[in-house]
Amino acid sequence: MSREQIEQCIAQCLACMQACNHCFDACLREEEAPMMADCIRHNRECADLCAFAAQALDRGSSYARALCRLCADACEACGETCLKHASEHCRLCAEACFACAKACRGMAA
Amino acid sequence: MSREQIEQCIAQCLACMQACNHCFDACLREEEAPMMADCIRHNRECADLCAFAAQALDRGSSYARALCRLCADACEACGETCLKHASEHCRLCAEACFACAKACRGMAA
Amino acid sequence: MSREQIEQCIAQCLACMQACNHCFDACLREEEAPMMADCIRHNRECADLCAFAAQALDRGSSYARALCRLCADACEACGETCLKHASEHCRLCAEACFACAKACRGMAA
Amino acid sequence: MSREQIEQCIAQCLACMQACNHCFDACLREEEAPMMADCIRHNRECADLCAFAAQALDRGSSYARALCRLCADACEACGETCLKHASEHCRLCAEACFACAKACRGMAA
Repeated sequence: MSREQIEQCIAQCLACMQACNHCFDACLREEEAPMMADCIRHNRECADLCAFAAQALDRGSSYARALCRLCADACEACGETCLKHASEHCRLCAEACFACAKACRGMAA
Repeated sequence: MSREQIEQCIAQCLACMQACNHCFDACLREEEAPMMADCIRHNRECADLCAFAAQALDRGSSYARALCRLCADACEACGETCLKHASEHCRLCAEACFACAKACRGMAA
Repeated sequence: MSREQIEQCIAQCLACMQACNHCFDACLREEEAPMMADCIRHNRECADLCAFAAQALDRGSSYARALCRLCADACEACGETCLKHASEHCRLCAEACFACAKACRGMAA
Repeated sequence: MSREQIEQCIAQCLACMQACNHCFDACLREEEAPMMADCIRHNRECADLCAFAAQALDRGSSYARALCRLCADACEACGETCLKHASEHCRLCAEACFACAKACRGMAA
């Protein structure tokens, strides 16, 4: 794995973490919160795993690859859930999630 | 600060972290999720700060006292919000929050 | 998985997180820090994974099992490293690590 | 506080988190690890607080300002420690720390 690929994956993880945290905050402000419950749950899982994977990559952890695999799973699940909603924050979150999943799959391979 | 007081504060932080994470999960399953949005938000803030403060205390961090002060604020805010709800998980969470706030105030003093 | 087993695994994760954070702090105070570098690195990996797995179990995360598997790997690696050192904090940390690894393997099975 | 200022502060926190995690990893590989013990300890404190503050800012947490104040303290302490060492990773870490401290002080004001 080149240093460039690792940096790229960290950047995607951190961008996805940010999108998920924005989406978490925005979903909690929506009138139809019950429809949003799934999204809120996935947002937190995904943000936390992205932050964790990014830090593991940063410090050369021996668990970084396995964490990237898990992170990719969480990103895909969160992205699929966000796609079901019409809000702009959900659309942006889904985009960040799929980009991050792709980078993490590359890292885990 | 005696080792015993520190251990006691860590135990309260971890118990509160657990109660908040349970309450977060349970609130997201409730029918009336919009009423629960505030509770969900506080649960995450409080669980994350409790986990962070406990780890800081564990490793003798120079930021442990300041984190305990912040953690006490988050516990009180979360406890007050939980008290407004009738669910058993909210009642248990409020209890854990007020106990943790007290221990953290003692640590921060 | 019974609620009791989950609670038991969370308790082991949090005990191990504490032992790892103590050991991290104590290793950094030792004269022979270079010998301790491996231990310090494992302590942080393991403490962070234990805290993460405990929170995932607490909130019914769909990634909890996979995280427990990773956590067990980190606990075993940390425990093996601690066993090479003579300090009391390393001995206690190794004990907590192997107990946590066992509980996490049970959860991941 | 404008959205732009918040985004800027988050970016500094994440850059600093990365520099601290790199420095942590690199310090643990140095021959003179005992000299590095202080740096390693500050790196972890600072990386964890940066990650925490960035996530709090991202999700509109009511504790974000107070966390930025603490984060600025941790960045300054870590930066001062890194300045005492000659390694390139320490120099880069100090730079990221002082830039982040400045952004966080602005946010906390």
